[in-house]
This record gives sequence, structure tokens and C-alpha cells, in this order.
Amino acid sequence: MPPHPLAILSEEETNIARDVVRSAHPDTIIDFREIYLSEPPKDQLREFLSLEHAGRLSPTTPRPPRLALCQYDVVGADRIPSYQESVVDVGARKTVKHQVVGKQHHAALTLSEFDVLVDACFASPLFKAALAEFDLPEGFEVTIEPWPYGGRDYTDENRRFFQGLCFATNKRHNNDDANFYSYPLPVIPVMDALTHEIIRVDRPATGGKGDGLTDQTFKRDIIGHCKDSDYVPELLANGTRKDLKPLNLVQPEGPSFRITDESLVEWQKWRFRVAFNPREGATIHDVYYDGRSVMYRLGVSEMTVPYADPRTPFHRKQAFDFGDGGGGNMANNLSIGCDCLGVIKYFDAVLTGPDGSAQKLPNAICLHEQDGGIGWKHSNWRTGRAVVTRNRELVVQFIITLANYEYIFAYKFDQAGGITVESRATGILNVVNIDPGKTSEYGNVVSGGVLAQNHQHIFCVRMDPAVDGENNSVVLEESHPVPMNEVTNPMGNFYQVTNTTVDRAGWFDAAPQLNRVVKMVNPHKINPISQKPVSYKFTPLATQTLLADPNSIQAKRAQFAQHHVWVTKFREGELYAGGRYTLQSQVEADGVADAVKRGDAVSDTDVVVWSTFGITHNPRVEDWPVMPVEIFQLMIRPSDFFTENPALDVPSDKNGSSVVVGKSSDCCRTAHI
Amino acid sequence: MPPHPLAILSEEETNIARDVVRSAHPDTIIDFREIYLSEPPKDQLREFLSLEHAGRLSPTTPRPPRLALCQYDVVGADRIPSYQESVVDVGARKTVKHQVVGKQHHAALTLSEFDVLVDACFASPLFKAALAEFDLPEGFEVTIEPWPYGGRDYTDENRRFFQGLCFATNKRHNNDDANFYSYPLPVIPVMDALTHEIIRVDRPATGGKGDGLTDQTFKRDIIGHCKDSDYVPELLANGTRKDLKPLNLVQPEGPSFRITDESLVEWQKWRFRVAFNPREGATIHDVYYDGRSVMYRLGVSEMTVPYADPRTPFHRKQAFDFGDGGGGNMANNLSIGCDCLGVIKYFDAVLTGPDGSAQKLPNAICLHEQDGGIGWKHSNWRTGRAVVTRNRELVVQFIITLANYEYIFAYKFDQAGGITVESRATGILNVVNIDPGKTSEYGNVVSGGVLAQNHQHIFCVRMDPAVDGENNSVVLEESHPVPMNEVTNPMGNFYQVTNTTVDRAGWFDAAPQLNRVVKMVNPHKINPISQKPVSYKFTPLATQTLLADPNSIQAKRAQFAQHHVWVTKFREGELYAGGRYTLQSQVEADGVADAVKRGDAVSDTDVVVWSTFGITHNPRVEDWPVMPVEIFQLMIRPSDFFTENPALDVPSDKNGSSVVVGKSSDCCRTAHI
Repeated sequence: MPPHPLAILSEEETNIARDVVRSAHPDTIIDFREIYLSEPPKDQLREFLSLEHAGRLSPTTPRPPRLALCQYDVVGADRIPSYQESVVDVGARKTVKHQVVGKQHHAALTLSEFDVLVDACFASPLFKAALAEFDLPEGFEVTIEPWPYGGRDYTDENRRFFQGLCFATNKRHNNDDANFYSYPLPVIPVMDALTHEIIRVDRPATGGKGDGLTDQTFKRDIIGHCKDSDYVPELLANGTRKDLKPLNLVQPEGPSFRITDESLVEWQKWRFRVAFNPREGATIHDVYYDGRSVMYRLGVSEMTVPYADPRTPFHRKQAFDFGDGGGGNMANNLSIGCDCLGVIKYFDAVLTGPDGSAQKLPNAICLHEQDGGIGWKHSNWRTGRAVVTRNRELVVQFIITLANYEYIFAYKFDQAGGITVESRATGILNVVNIDPGKTSEYGNVVSGGVLAQNHQHIFCVRMDPAVDGENNSVVLEESHPVPMNEVTNPMGNFYQVTNTTVDRAGWFDAAPQLNRVVKMVNPHKINPISQKPVSYKFTPLATQTLLADPNSIQAKRAQFAQHHVWVTKFREGELYAGGRYTLQSQVEADGVADAVKRGDAVSDTDVVVWSTFGITHNPRVEDWPVMPVEIFQLMIRPSDFFTENPALDVPSDKNGSSVVVGKSSDCCRTAHI
Repeated sequence: MPPHPLAILSEEETNIARDVVRSAHPDTIIDFREIYLSEPPKDQLREFLSLEHAGRLSPTTPRPPRLALCQYDVVGADRIPSYQESVVDVGARKTVKHQVVGKQHHAALTLSEFDVLVDACFASPLFKAALAEFDLPEGFEVTIEPWPYGGRDYTDENRRFFQGLCFATNKRHNNDDANFYSYPLPVIPVMDALTHEIIRVDRPATGGKGDGLTDQTFKRDIIGHCKDSDYVPELLANGTRKDLKPLNLVQPEGPSFRITDESLVEWQKWRFRVAFNPREGATIHDVYYDGRSVMYRLGVSEMTVPYADPRTPFHRKQAFDFGDGGGGNMANNLSIGCDCLGVIKYFDAVLTGPDGSAQKLPNAICLHEQDGGIGWKHSNWRTGRAVVTRNRELVVQFIITLANYEYIFAYKFDQAGGITVESRATGILNVVNIDPGKTSEYGNVVSGGVLAQNHQHIFCVRMDPAVDGENNSVVLEESHPVPMNEVTNPMGNFYQVTNTTVDRAGWFDAAPQLNRVVKMVNPHKINPISQKPVSYKFTPLATQTLLADPNSIQAKRAQFAQHHVWVTKFREGELYAGGRYTLQSQVEADGVADAVKRGDAVSDTDVVVWSTFGITHNPRVEDWPVMPVEIFQLMIRPSDFFTENPALDVPSDKNGSSVVVGKSSDCCRTAHI
């Protein structure tokens, strides 16, 4: 059988696309950025999937062509790279679409550009001169953390820049994993990405409360007040704790899931496909439950991390962790028994090297089951009979490392028809140098001389629902108080539940005071029990939206982060909340805010729902040197989709491996006095 | 050694208290309600605990007396019970305090009163006559679900009543656990608890949309449109699913916790005591982390479940599940491998029979460890080295059954110094009969003829912090946008973090738009790194507060449910957010709303913080017949309490029991391309 239309490009397919691009651009140098599957247009894919669900596929069934989206710089005789994108039909070995991307946009960065920055810094007289103002202790070496340039200054040209956040690494431990973030240096070299020249070394302030925005009180002994703060176990002064006994997750009969081809997962009446791309990481497609469609596509669309220190040039610290460099590109190779427990299925990914060659990323996604505590329980107090089930969950997980930070993303499926999109933020705070003894209103001192700046992490999850069919509506359910009155509320206990269909594309915010719930309904499929349209719902997370002034560059380029829920009409390729090109963007172009401006009718049609949530992260000392996970959960739940609790048939068997400390007990019966 | 002052009363101690009460009331009948530990006054207990923490306890150390709080009715010659409370010094075998509770209050109910109601109904001609209006199918029997009477009507006297919600049980299955809630009967008998007389049978409406508040369209075939909807596995039409493989939690070296006496738990630098009482269930005391005090007492104080159907007499459906009957009284006997997995320590409780005798409730609380996913991770993308730790949690769990509903409460301790108070709502919806084919604006039809009414579940957790000492302050941290301006915010990215100390007892609400965080700080202990006061913090859950009209009885008796956070000055015995006596209350008396009216200064003193949260539950069909858990988590976290991530020394060992489907992999190393 040929690959499924949603299967990621194989290494072979990737290399074919590379060759097609190369031959289309003779006599030039091609610097490849990405090659990955261009998902089939929805109408084609739907046609294929409907045949697949009907069991009518054969090796000769017509399939959407395998298309490769190729992103690359063409470097001609003028040595000036031109960023271009092609779509290559891999089967036909030909280019079916080609575009020279305008200069107003910047291609996403690649890690090889980071290498260039590091080399350029160390070769730069300007940078060397800046460093010469400091005396680093014996055994310390400068480490440069390459960063996107953030929204450029108002005064900058639209050239491509990178900036380097600088630290010193204590090499006296002979350990390359000593935590260099403990020793921040107040210099930020800026490189012109075209010329590879360090054009400037910015000197951020190091002052504290009461000091001005520009006070730079450099001293030669710049890290004299900093100290080691390591996290690798061999560098911990007292080692690791000894009193943690193993807790093993054992599945003697194997997993409950089935993987019948490389992207299809079947588990507990769920059936969906797992894909991966360098921008979004793992994505979920064609989600069915017990033969009924739930979701066409589910993915993490974007996230932004704006920093709130007003001192120049810290306003440039604003990452778009999916758009700037690609969440998939930054995905970890996951480790058994560490990142995931139990019986694990790994999915590999294919990324692209600078020469366009496929590079396998092993274990980019893990799939495993876990126990989610009690799923449902009822005790009949008359008889003492208790029925209790566990909530088994299936987890599709990937983890990305973005320089200092990591994010753990998981799509969790449960037996009650629910899908939870979970994000865990961990890793190391982004920090700057602060003068000895000072504190700051721009962040928290988390280690000697180390200021962790206040910032936000704002995520956007994109849901393309297909609740019992492709045309859905979005309905807002709210619960409103009703003043006591003789006619409708004589005792004052009544509250009114309202349901309002969203007619036009737009945004709205979480409203916990109204218990606002977003339902994705199929207006044509009526639940036979409740007589209401079938739906999946979620409660928008009431988290703080973007704090930056609406006229700031930070805000202009992150419109998506300013409201909790966006509703748009599906448009092919419209996947990115913050716009396709976020690197050095000045405004959010073709993101979700532009999409809603079309004013499309969104009722009873192919609708897309975007959920924005996050954290205002004013660091704690406890977040240093590696922060304990902060967990966010977007819970997507059936609401009158089924005719009863879909987990009703989960067995309530006793788990035989559990044991008691001290004494024994009956199982699964509850007795009241 | 004598029992620890926080140890629950033993059976022997309970029976001594019973005997003391009996001998204090000669020539009367005593109907006992509760006998349980009256916790030592804080000053006495603190003195003892400070000796204990200093390692200076001996068998001869003076101890607070073991006091039993005894609640009982005294029935004299006039046959009218007088509700009284005594405190008995168990060691001295004498009454140290005695109070006749005024008639304005009602004692909490006991299950034996429920039995009285059921007997009274079946003996009542009035009730029989009401039932005779219906033809139940062959093999159906009437089942009565006793309920507290809720806030009484304006017109009622303050007599003690109980109401019965009536259903029919299908006995044709010969299974006593057939789900009688599937067959609701529209009759509600009301009993005078003094005379045991059924004084009235209320006839609730059964209409739908457009029908009036009082329309009672009875028909003889009252459950002809209802159907079986069972949850016990042997009554499921298709049985349970077969494709779920076992997932075992195995701890080959035993648990990581230590239980050194019957109430003391030590685990991963945590040290705390577990107690239990019939009102609150499990409570947590004297919480220390690594030798430092965190919390004096932590418990679930109250919850209320008001129903929103405006049709008389449904306004009376408002349970106070802790105050009305006692969350501890309703606690389940927990089951290994079902309610809890792994290596489990159970704690028994002691409850009281009608004759005052101690009755052991085995396995009232379980203690076990679980894996909470990744705890923290960082990958050094330069070296490929990843360090990843799991977040092991210690869970103290108890489960209560309140007629149809269950609540699963857990105090979860983690390795990063966090405490999470979790509540899971599950069980069976409270439902009423609705005419065939109709729908309602007062709830959702979840099964034929079964209307699940809209309602709320509102919890209140009481925290008595002791952050590095007994005197603490409450500080509200907020993050505010700042308009772009030349002086403080030239690029518009700055936001301001404000910290405001709460001076006077009062309430405030969650404010996610301001990222409002509540910190419990010790103003005298300064974190040496950040130079800020040490604290524990939580973000109030932004959930909808009570919807009932403020002038309704529902609202008046549940003031606590109308704001998210309450701050009071500690007062001995002030434990109950909704007041000590909630059964049939008309107003919240001596609850948290009254406590704040004292206007106490609450800065740098013995402060108590109350967190209210919940769910507006407009039922889904999926919530029937037993609802999947709805999960709430109050996350109490250190904030500048420690000088680094306290989980930093958690080992990052690979778990050896995990296996791969398909292929093998390296452990715990991450490589970027």
C-alpha cells in the first residue's frame, strides 16, 4: 500500500523533493530550511477518508498526490539569499507551486543560523572589545545563546538579525553541562544575518529598583556576585535524594492500543492519526470515536513568550516558539522510562538538514497509557455495593526545547470521550545580570546576580472540529442569574442557561462569572435523549491575556494572544494563529486576527476554533535553576454527543498488583454504618 | 506513649465519653449523634508541637487533655428531644463543657433519621394515597431517598423536617443495585422529625418548556416513558469492554513514605499528620517541609449544592454536604486496587452509633504514591544531555457518598514543595420526572422521562497557614498593564506587578484578568536570594459563584459561596464556612461571612484563608447514569519559600520497567540535529 495521505514524508520522499528543488534552481546555492508534507487539501483528503472509513480503500484507490512543502534560500551570484517556497509533487517529481516570499517576511530560523551567530561573535572585534571590559574568573568561558531578534525596533531596517544572550560557563568542573545561565553577562551582540557581521553590541542595564531604564553600572568583576547553580546530578553539592523507592508501571499483557499502520492509532473506541511537522510538532487528525467523527485536525498552533522588562533592548525578548524556529524542529528525542513510562510506542520524525537531506529524529513522539485516577464511582448506600472504575488515558506526547525553556505537550484521550490538550512549562528561566544586592520591579532575583524577568507564556490551540460531520456551529452557553420574581423565579433559586450561536467570525473571552462554555455543535444531528444538537465543548481557560500595550510591537505581532477564543471559517493552509511568518514580524500578518476580519459566516459550516491560554510568569526562587512544571489543560469534552456516559462499560475490576501496608481489606465494596 | 493530641479518639476513648454523657443525664434517653475528638486549643497544641519538633517529648511531657466533643439529643419525659453538646475530658472522665443548643439551630442529621423517614413514609396513609394515583409496572417497588429539607419555606415553622425523593426500583432483575434513579416519581413526602408524621406529600411539576411553574400533569402510567439505565456491570446489556489490558503500579521496594505512629506521615521531606472527623472527613495538620512549618491545619470546610429548578418545592433541594450530615460520616470504606493503586496505607476512622458506641469505619482514608508525569526537565541542546525527573506525588484520599453523588477528595503533596487539594465530583445526578417528549429550561433530559436539573457544586477549602511560623499576612499579587509612556514603558512591553497586604478581614474574588495570586507570607522571614518575604501562594479558581438571588434563602444560607477568597483572623473552633449548623438554616450563622464582619486586623497575625470554588453543572447526557469525574484542583505552591527548586535533588534515574513497542531506544539523552 502507498503511504497514507497523512503519513509524514519518508526520508526517501524528502530526498526526492530536495532533488526536484535543486534541479529547478541550477547554478545557484540552495540553503534548505524545511521539507515536509504539505497536507492534502481538505476536499481531497475528506474524499479519501470517507472511502477509508467506509472500508472501500484498495491499492488502486485514487489518492491525493504526496506533496512536499520545501522552504529554502536561493543564493545567486549577488550572494543575497532569496527565500522561496515550493510545493513538489513527490510522485510526479515535479514542482506544482513556487513562490518567492516577499522581503517583508522573514523565513523561520534554522539551527545552522545559530551556529553562524556564535562564530561571528567570537570573530568580531566589537564583541571582543565588549568582553574585554570584564574580568571573568579563571576557568570561565563565554557562552552565547542565540536568539531571534524579536520585534525589531521602530528605527531598524527590516534586515534579518540575530541576537546573542551571553553567559559565562564555569569550566572548572570539567562538565559541559554546568549551568551557564547562572552567570549572565550584560552584553547582547547583534548580527546582520546577511553579512554575518556583528553590527552592534547592546549593553543592557544591570540596575535595580530606583535605577533608571538605561543605567549601566558595569563593573569589571561582572559575575563576582554570581554562583554555581547546577541541575545535572553529578554537580549537585549533596547529590540526589536517596529515599525515593521505584514506582513501576507494568503492563504484563502489553498495551491496550493498536498501531495498524505507522500513523493510525486505535484505542478504547478512539481512532485517530498522529502526524508531525517541523512547525507544530505532533498533530492529531481524523479523530473518530466508536465510528463517529469528532475532530478533523487538532494541533498546537502557536505560542508567544513576551518579556516585560522595559529596559532596552529587553523589549526584543519575545519568542514565537512555533513560528520563529518550529516547535517540531526543536522536539526532543524522547527517552523510555524518563519522558514516558509503561509500554511505549515511539513515532520518529523526519527533519531536514541544510543540504536538504532527510534527517531522522528518532522518538519524536511517544504514545503510552496511564492511570488517571478514579474515572467514575457510585456506591449504593443501601446495599453497600460500590462500582468504581479507573480513568485510563492514552497520551500522545512530544517535548520541545527552546534554548532555556522546555514545553511538554500532550494530547490525552480518555474513556469518557474526552480529549485534553495539556502543556507543561519547565526548563530554565531566561535571566539577566543584576548588580549585587539589588532587587528589581522587572523580575525576581533567583540566584546571586541573576534576575529572572517577568514574562508571559501564551499558547494557542487550533481545533478543526468535525462533530458528527464537517459542518458545525459554535454555540456559547452561559448561566445567568435571574432576579427573584413572582413569575419565573419565585424563590430566587433559578438561573437561566442561554445558548447563543456565533454567526460571524470573531473573538470572545473567557467569562467564568457567566460560566461561559464553548460548544462545537452539529446543528443537524439531534441527541435522541436530550433533543439537543450533539456537541463537543470546552471551557475557555480564564488566564490573563497579553499585557503589553496594544500599540507596542509585542502586542501588534501577537494579536492572537489578546483574546481567549477565536472562531473562523476554515481556509486551506490557515493554521497559524500568529501568522505564517513570525520571525521579526512587526504585526501579526495573516494570523487569526486577520482571518476573523473577513467576517465570514461561521454558522453551520466548516468552522475552526482557536483557544488561547497561558500564564503570567513572575518567577519564584523555586523556579531556579530548573522550574517545576506549570500545567495547563484544555479539556475538550462531549456534551450530548453520546446517549450515556461512554465510559459506562469500563470494567470495574480490581487491580491485582496493589498491596496494603499493615493489613488487608475487602475489594470494591463500600459499607456505611 | 499516650496518643498524640491529634490522633482521632480510639474506640475505647469514644466509649468512655459515651459513658460520661450518659451518667450526666440520668433518667433520660440519649440519642447520640457524634462523638469525636475536640482538637486541643491552638495555644496548647502549639506548645506541645513545638516540644515535639524540638525532639523534647517524653512519656511524662504534659499533654493537652484528650477531649471528646459529644453531640446528642436528650429525650426527657415530654418526649421532645433537646439537642445538646458536651465536651468530655476522656482522661479525667468528666464533662468540662456543656451546652443546650438553641432551637434556632438544627443538629446535623444522622442516617438513623433517614431510616425513620423511610418507615414513616410507608406507614403513612397520605403517602399511600399519593402513590395510589400511579400504576407502577409489575415488579417495580417504591424507593425513598431521604434528603435534608433544604432551607425551609418562608411560611414554615422552624420544625425539623425531612423530605423523601421518590423513585421506583425495577426488581425484575433480582438485583438490589438496579438503578432506581431511572424511574423518578413526582411525589415528595415531608416528615416532621419530632412526630415522625408525614405531614404533607408535595407534588412537583413534571412539565417542560412553556408549561407553568406549577403545572402537574400527572398520569397513571407515571414511569411508562422511563427505562432501565444501569451501571452495575452485570446489568449492562453488552457487558463491559474486553480490550482494556491491565496497567499495574508496582513498588517492588515498598513505599517511600513512613508511618511512625498512627497519624504521622513522613515522605520526601514532608512531615504532617492525618486526622479524621465525621464532619470534614480527612484533615491535615502540622505540615512541615524539611523542618520548616508550612500549614497548621488544612481541610475541606463545606460544600453546597443548590438546584436551580424554580418550581416548588425544588428550591428546597440545596444540600450542605459537610454541615448537613457530615462528610466524614458519609466516607466510603476504600478498596485496594479500585479506589487506590500501588502500595497503600489505610487509616481507619471511628464513628458513633445511635447508642453512642464507637463504630470502626475501616479504610476511611488511603495514602499512596503516584506518578504525576514529568516533574522538571532540561535539555542542553549544545551537548544533547537531558535531565528529566518524574513528579512523584503522595496522595491522602477519602471519598464520600451523599445519596446519589460522590466526591473524591485528595490532598496531594509533591516533591517541589506543593500541596494540591483536589476534588472530583462523580456519582449519579439528582433527577426528577418529566412528561414524555418534553424538554426543560431547568435542566437536561438525560434518559427517558428523567430530567437532570441544573445545579451548582460549590466547595470551600480552609487553610490555616503557618508559613515559617504562626504569624502570617495575606498579600495579593496582581499584574497590571501599563500604558506605553516615555518614562517607565517606552516600548510598551512593561507590566507592573503589585503586592497589596490585606489589612482587615474580608473577601475578594478571583481576578484572572489581573492574574491575581494570593500569597500567605511571613513578613518577618525574608528569602535570602530574592529579599522578599517567604510565602506559599495559590491562584483562586475563577469559577462561577452562587447564582441564586442574594435575597433567596439559598443565597442567604450560603454566603461563603458568593466570593472566592475569605480572610479571617483565627478564632478557636471557627472551622465551618457555612456555619456550624447548616441543616434547615435560613441564614449562614457564624460562618465565614460573619467572621469577616468582626473586621479583625489580619496582617502579621494568626490568619486563616478560605478558598471557594466549584462548578455550575448543567448536566450532559454523558453524565448519566454515573458521571465521569469533574476535577477541581486548588494548587498551593511555595513562592520564595525555598532558595531553589526543592525538587532539584530528585533522581533522574530511568525507570527500568518501561518497555518499547517495536524498537529500542537510548535513555535520558536528547540529541538535536
